Amino acid sequence: MTVRVGVNGFGTIGKRVADAVARQPDLKLVGIAKTRPSFEAQRAVDHGYSLYVAGEGSAEKFAAVGLPVAGRLPDLLAQVDVMIDATPEEVGRANRPLYEAAGVRAIFQGGEEADVAEGSFSALANYEACRGKRTLRVVSCNTTGITRAAAVLLPRWGVEHWEVTLVRRAADPGESKRGPVDGIVPTLDVPSHHGPDAQTVLPGLPIATTAVVVPTTLMHVHVNHVRLRRAPAEAAEVVEAFRGTPRFHVFAPWERVDGTPQVMEFARDRWGRDGIRGPDMMENVLWERGVSVHGPDVHFFQAIHQESIVIPENIDAIRAMLELADGPTSIATTDRALGIGRARGAARPRAAAATPVRRKA
Amino acid sequence: MTVRVGVNGFGTIGKRVADAVARQPDLKLVGIAKTRPSFEAQRAVDHGYSLYVAGEGSAEKFAAVGLPVAGRLPDLLAQVDVMIDATPEEVGRANRPLYEAAGVRAIFQGGEEADVAEGSFSALANYEACRGKRTLRVVSCNTTGITRAAAVLLPRWGVEHWEVTLVRRAADPGESKRGPVDGIVPTLDVPSHHGPDAQTVLPGLPIATTAVVVPTTLMHVHVNHVRLRRAPAEAAEVVEAFRGTPRFHVFAPWERVDGTPQVMEFARDRWGRDGIRGPDMMENVLWERGVSVHGPDVHFFQAIHQESIVIPENIDAIRAMLELADGPTSIATTDRALGIGRARGAARPRAAAATPVRRKA
Amino acid sequence: MTVRVGVNGFGTIGKRVADAVARQPDLKLVGIAKTRPSFEAQRAVDHGYSLYVAGEGSAEKFAAVGLPVAGRLPDLLAQVDVMIDATPEEVGRANRPLYEAAGVRAIFQGGEEADVAEGSFSALANYEACRGKRTLRVVSCNTTGITRAAAVLLPRWGVEHWEVTLVRRAADPGESKRGPVDGIVPTLDVPSHHGPDAQTVLPGLPIATTAVVVPTTLMHVHVNHVRLRRAPAEAAEVVEAFRGTPRFHVFAPWERVDGTPQVMEFARDRWGRDGIRGPDMMENVLWERGVSVHGPDVHFFQAIHQESIVIPENIDAIRAMLELADGPTSIATTDRALGIGRARGAARPRAAAATPVRRKA
Amino acid sequence: MTVRVGVNGFGTIGKRVADAVARQPDLKLVGIAKTRPSFEAQRAVDHGYSLYVAGEGSAEKFAAVGLPVAGRLPDLLAQVDVMIDATPEEVGRANRPLYEAAGVRAIFQGGEEADVAEGSFSALANYEACRGKRTLRVVSCNTTGITRAAAVLLPRWGVEHWEVTLVRRAADPGESKRGPVDGIVPTLDVPSHHGPDAQTVLPGLPIATTAVVVPTTLMHVHVNHVRLRRAPAEAAEVVEAFRGTPRFHVFAPWERVDGTPQVMEFARDRWGRDGIRGPDMMENVLWERGVSVHGPDVHFFQAIHQESIVIPENIDAIRAMLELADGPTSIATTDRALGIGRARGAARPRAAAATPVRRKA
Repeated sequence: MTVRVGVNGFGTIGKRVADAVARQPDLKLVGIAKTRPSFEAQRAVDHGYSLYVAGEGSAEKFAAVGLPVAGRLPDLLAQVDVMIDATPEEVGRANRPLYEAAGVRAIFQGGEEADVAEGSFSALANYEACRGKRTLRVVSCNTTGITRAAAVLLPRWGVEHWEVTLVRRAADPGESKRGPVDGIVPTLDVPSHHGPDAQTVLPGLPIATTAVVVPTTLMHVHVNHVRLRRAPAEAAEVVEAFRGTPRFHVFAPWERVDGTPQVMEFARDRWGRDGIRGPDMMENVLWERGVSVHGPDVHFFQAIHQESIVIPENIDAIRAMLELADGPTSIATTDRALGIGRARGAARPRAAAATPVRRKA
Repeated sequence: MTVRVGVNGFGTIGKRVADAVARQPDLKLVGIAKTRPSFEAQRAVDHGYSLYVAGEGSAEKFAAVGLPVAGRLPDLLAQVDVMIDATPEEVGRANRPLYEAAGVRAIFQGGEEADVAEGSFSALANYEACRGKRTLRVVSCNTTGITRAAAVLLPRWGVEHWEVTLVRRAADPGESKRGPVDGIVPTLDVPSHHGPDAQTVLPGLPIATTAVVVPTTLMHVHVNHVRLRRAPAEAAEVVEAFRGTPRFHVFAPWERVDGTPQVMEFARDRWGRDGIRGPDMMENVLWERGVSVHGPDVHFFQAIHQESIVIPENIDAIRAMLELADGPTSIATTDRALGIGRARGAARPRAAAATPVRRKA
Repeated sequence: MTVRVGVNGFGTIGKRVADAVARQPDLKLVGIAKTRPSFEAQRAVDHGYSLYVAGEGSAEKFAAVGLPVAGRLPDLLAQVDVMIDATPEEVGRANRPLYEAAGVRAIFQGGEEADVAEGSFSALANYEACRGKRTLRVVSCNTTGITRAAAVLLPRWGVEHWEVTLVRRAADPGESKRGPVDGIVPTLDVPSHHGPDAQTVLPGLPIATTAVVVPTTLMHVHVNHVRLRRAPAEAAEVVEAFRGTPRFHVFAPWERVDGTPQVMEFARDRWGRDGIRGPDMMENVLWERGVSVHGPDVHFFQAIHQESIVIPENIDAIRAMLELADGPTSIATTDRALGIGRARGAARPRAAAATPVRRKA
Repeated sequence: MTVRVGVNGFGTIGKRVADAVARQPDLKLVGIAKTRPSFEAQRAVDHGYSLYVAGEGSAEKFAAVGLPVAGRLPDLLAQVDVMIDATPEEVGRANRPLYEAAGVRAIFQGGEEADVAEGSFSALANYEACRGKRTLRVVSCNTTGITRAAAVLLPRWGVEHWEVTLVRRAADPGESKRGPVDGIVPTLDVPSHHGPDAQTVLPGLPIATTAVVVPTTLMHVHVNHVRLRRAPAEAAEVVEAFRGTPRFHVFAPWERVDGTPQVMEFARDRWGRDGIRGPDMMENVLWERGVSVHGPDVHFFQAIHQESIVIPENIDAIRAMLELADGPTSIATTDRALGIGRARGAARPRAAAATPVRRKA
């Protein structure tokens, strides 16, 4: 069976989800919906995606610039099993009745409130709990980053208490209008919404989040302090747990990756690798040297690529809803199709630094 | 008695310290030393400060641009009781033998290692312990910010454990060469050096610090999570403790100060107030709305103006060394001369929000 | 006679204009109008300015935070001879009927279209032409910078053709919301609006302007190429013409001012000088080394402090309207009151570099 | 005949040149040389490139992290016909004797002075003049951008005079250390070095360049004013000349590309297209709406992707040196291999805007 998928919205998330759907063996991208012509609409056409006019958009405007349209959003809805809504914040909620009326399943993004859907989803953290749902919300980039890390920590050592400071990017790289240009803006509500949001995936997670916004476009960085229930033997034990988990990428010191500028440089360099979208970093990024253990207290930094981290989760959410596969199988399928995990770079454990044999990742 | 003070170095810290010395009733600025001509040397002359040539500097170069010099560093040393070293990192240590040989007391800055001096100093935290020393090190801007906050928390509620994430500015506003322009660079060593540095002032302080550098020039922001020994009754109790302490400025919600851009705007707006250096913010800056209390757990944000926060501490360090006054008296004298605390803005406690009577700060 | 002045709007321009009015010997600041409480409203009160509620603002909201109000905008209008409108773009035009109905003269800012007033004003360029007008528009920061420079070039050498590329700051330092964070945004309309705007002050000025927006908050920089009608003998002739004109500041190479970060550092350093608003740079800023002459072709860079450059022009506009003084007298009066030109720094001409005698500025 | 090519240096330029060489039908990448291990060295290995140790680099350090090395730089030199030197500024000059001693031809980058090689090269501008040289210097990104544009303007209309203001990016996206973070730094030497550099390719080109550095990482933007010898009929004539030339990309208004953030977004979106390196923009980028014509005066903006624009020129330089093909053939071969020009997006001329027929690019 091939699941027929539509994508509503073709911005930062929508275009990446469309590409990802198109690469899955068990999914078929029927088309994408967009409200107006732009270089991104042109790109959809260039990639061979059928283009539908969303919302109040004008088919004439597309025609005037030579972009062929296949119909309007209802035409797309009539042909799909699942709709992925990648429209701007709060538009998703307004679209929900359309999907219901068309009888299609729907996946919303983390910009929507949790009650937009039957459940909130993070593949490593609660795939099973989301099986069979008719609507799901893939949590936001930051919450995805947190819940993935929770999926590593919880089963191994338990979490007594977790504090995260989120150092958030101000705007995406393709945006011109949002600031600040120079300055730091704290999110004065404590906890920030990210902690409660993570609890929609993992109820009861003992987490408190605080956040600031800073003038960068590349990635968020999370500064984590976790008090575990059981103390790891050493930092290497924690590092290897992350390194051995899908959708984590851990940089070793010799790689000379000082911060997010080099992480994104690494991501851009992967362009030629099969299936990997060059400029994206769909994994949680950690630094081996930035993982510190003192008894049950673990500190670690993780960088989160806000543009792409939720893409594999959107794919897995489809399989969970339709019960096409169990979680590990879906994750493996998604990652293989997207090339995640193939170019891991720093696969050799710190403990083995003296041994000049390189483990293939 | 008037203490004769010299300042070696006339950059970001040196020029502010010189201005501050010149405004104190019990101190006399004998002169400042600088290695080469620049608009800042011109400013020293414009303010009537005697200019001495430091290090390998050439008196001819000053003369060539019409800047009169009064001698070289040793000439200045011969006339002072105390030298404040505000030279670049690690130059202070190299200068120490000069000060010793001249028999003058010396104050170093936080860029030097702790053992450059007999003690590390923070006025609110350990004034008494530093009385009578011949050399002191005023701790760095971030450590000053932390130890000031400790001086509020420790005596009132005790500190069980303290985690701070320092979101650090990349460069000062007057610098052109340092980056990053776009990106976040984590300080991978955990703890960052700030925690141990705070312990040079407050031995045994149970603090762990982590840090990231971000592309801003205005201020650092500290994101704090403190587990206190005794729980405050409510957030307002903590807010008022900060608000009632010298060298703290707490913004109320109605002031519409979202982040460091507005804090610095507030600081620039003070220019016309007696004694206050317009663009500076020598106080720890907190947001009333950003103080959160859950049982013994307190979260708060504080912004630290890296250029100016240590200036009053340099003045107090002189009085501590020479035992000119006790701590509270010195702090009050310094602050009165610098205008700190006179324009407090948001002095009305949150609890009294309904009462339209404004408490004068 | 003392002219009674009100200021409507107390943001970036309004607060500076109010300070400047308050310092003039022949003007009296009656009060300022603002729509809502903020740290800036507090500052107005701290400076002793009477506060009036503008527009739809609520007097109760001011009272609730302890800010005393003296009335509403119409109450202020009833007491003034001239109103300076410093409200956001296009609000000025909406306010015009209020000023007309109250029978007060009005000065608008450059964010308004030229036809908002009887004339467009730039003190050095067209003071005489604006005498006796009942309404004037002080042109924008960039246009003020251009027309000031024109007032130097036109009478001395004539202008055959002038090309300016404006490298514009993205946001003011106190703003958090505007971008871009990383990127350059060209103003695709050629010429940009600045050229035609300069022609509202100097009809027929043969100028073409192009513009880009870049991620900085400090200053604009103009890159100028002028073909003059008569060739200057050498660059020094042009440098000295600028240096000898009020409201120009020319940095010499030895001052080590590489770019706008150091220009603003210089400005901040002036805080203690009588009358000068520390963080402001009300002069056009040139670099001696950046002035180049090849026959009739002159290139020069000038930096424009968008927040403050139009402030003295607002004051002079009052005197022009009311024919209180001729242009040079008004300019001298304004500048003396604001401290402009007293701390000129690099006053010695390049030609005299060998002579170690410093001309006092 | 297949030409054997080595690349010395594997940073921003080197890694892109290596990828480009590997994709050419008539070239063979023998290996790359690098001084020390890093994520970029890992990438070379991942792509199957043979890795040689350059300069003082230690083979042991590579071995210690599992990176296999094939030898040292002399070993690579022994196997190649041409060496492309992509080492940091001025290192190229130091390397020249090595290449001479090994009897290999060498291509240097624009960071070197012009006399490092027999000629300076820009494919569209002076391919023929560089045929048969043993050493060439591919001019810098900005000079390549200028000389490509000259190759469009000169033969069609002639250039009477050309003024360019270069708004330069401060650092590359992968750099952490260079600033400024906030501020504009003018290049006070007029002309900047770019004009004379362009004249090394096109002697006598009547061009004057001025430059400023701004806090962005994405692209440079050139603001051009050209007085042509013969006036074009209209802007569309100029637009179409650029659009019809290889290595130019012209955005139409409907594409909604406001500035360099969207240009780079467009580039990133090309990742999946055959042969194109996703995040790169090897073409000069113009905006149709930003081209303005008044008689013989033309204004236009062009954005230059500093990381990639010289890559195709490095390839063509090889063919010119070895006389493997004429210029147009080489350019076409290079571009086909790299995918340049296939995804042109806005191919429809402005004049035809009313006709809803889209020309395939």
